[in-house]
Amino acid sequence: MKDTLTVVKIGGKVINEEAELDLFLKKFAALKGNKILVHGGGNIASVVQNKMGIPPKMVEGRRITDADAIDIVTMVFSGLNKKIVSKLQALNVQSIGLSGADGNLIRSVKRPVKTIDYGFVGDVEEVNSELLKSLFDAGLVPVVCALTHDNQGQLLNTNADTIASELARGVADKYQVDLVYCFEQPGVLSDFENKVVIPEITPEGYEKYKSEGVIVDGMIPKLDNAFDAINAGVDTVKICHFDSLDKVQSEDYPGTTLCLK
Amino acid sequence: MKDTLTVVKIGGKVINEEAELDLFLKKFAALKGNKILVHGGGNIASVVQNKMGIPPKMVEGRRITDADAIDIVTMVFSGLNKKIVSKLQALNVQSIGLSGADGNLIRSVKRPVKTIDYGFVGDVEEVNSELLKSLFDAGLVPVVCALTHDNQGQLLNTNADTIASELARGVADKYQVDLVYCFEQPGVLSDFENKVVIPEITPEGYEKYKSEGVIVDGMIPKLDNAFDAINAGVDTVKICHFDSLDKVQSEDYPGTTLCLK
Repeated sequence: MKDTLTVVKIGGKVINEEAELDLFLKKFAALKGNKILVHGGGNIASVVQNKMGIPPKMVEGRRITDADAIDIVTMVFSGLNKKIVSKLQALNVQSIGLSGADGNLIRSVKRPVKTIDYGFVGDVEEVNSELLKSLFDAGLVPVVCALTHDNQGQLLNTNADTIASELARGVADKYQVDLVYCFEQPGVLSDFENKVVIPEITPEGYEKYKSEGVIVDGMIPKLDNAFDAINAGVDTVKICHFDSLDKVQSEDYPGTTLCLK
Repeated sequence: MKDTLTVVKIGGKVINEEAELDLFLKKFAALKGNKILVHGGGNIASVVQNKMGIPPKMVEGRRITDADAIDIVTMVFSGLNKKIVSKLQALNVQSIGLSGADGNLIRSVKRPVKTIDYGFVGDVEEVNSELLKSLFDAGLVPVVCALTHDNQGQLLNTNADTIASELARGVADKYQVDLVYCFEQPGVLSDFENKVVIPEITPEGYEKYKSEGVIVDGMIPKLDNAFDAINAGVDTVKICHFDSLDKVQSEDYPGTTLCLK
């Protein structure tokens, strides 16, 4: 029987608002077994960029991380990381904040320029699963921000969803892994207006929901990514509202669970 | 025979200028044995504070870390910390960046208000020496920034010289510790104009240099602090130019060494 590991990803509103964050961290603190928290930066990087007179650059609705931006993103994400660690320590969680550079946790490669130059953005190449294991063995709870490195001295802005998925996949041979994406909806919805949650989705069900137009748009890359993780050995992927984090290990979990069968 | 540990503190100019920093980190990478790098923030926090339209507050020439300032200092110090870690990784140093909150490495208490309220500034109470040992055992090189926490969710700005000294003292029973302060002078000077370095200072010598007016002003708290570390079990304290870091473990070390006899 493998030890359990819960990898939780948060972003968006819960990061921006301190009271929401405090409530969420209490729920994270109560989770049993080994755990990792992965966080994005909410909109704080954009706020700081604007305050510093270097407004974010966007191309076709996507953020460009140029040299100025990576410096600010690095500060904001790692500063937030320390703030979260300090709050978790106050909740008796022996947390340790990491970027992908720390202990060479996540090596990535700068995204090649095709039509758009995204700048200092990383595509993940390798996760240091030995490091994670030694941190768990030392009783530590990693808190990981959305930065990786190229092992040549450059930090790279990296999607937090991807980081969570890659960390989960990287240790799936050693642990029974539950990957949890917390966001602002109660789960994957079959009826957006009435917030009707699909409780369980298998690969076959997923194909059906897509062909029927039930699952569309932005949810498709998210679920593709989630099923990739499951195919790579992650046991379950859960998608739920961040308020439901205290229920992901219980019978009355109200969100969506993705699993092989 | 105890394992060796070298604790190196840098600050000032070497932090502000990337080329100087790169050169310094190469020298740090070449040091033998267990090692820790402690860094200040140079003047980067003040630069960012000014850019964000929240200029640093000073009282009697000393910085006040109010609520706005601690947020910016946290970002700047931890961002710089990740940058240094990423550069060290490129030099094959398995570095890991930490604040005092990470793994509860350094617990401090907010400085009580006497005549001046310094704000969110920490006075060190306890170092987690078990954590340091487990990091060394995992082959990791801690890079520590000038932030501690109060274990109640608050990060505190803390003098980097003090952090270096407290870390060195905290593990002095387990390791043979060499504490190295790198700065912009070649050592403790007996003749400032001609840059004549005092190669060795014992406690008796220190008293003599003070009574003769050879060692004065800002050097006194620095050396008091250094001798406190020695009295607490640190083997040697070295004070030298940051260019000399590659010589602290060699016979032709040109800086000052403080030791019991």
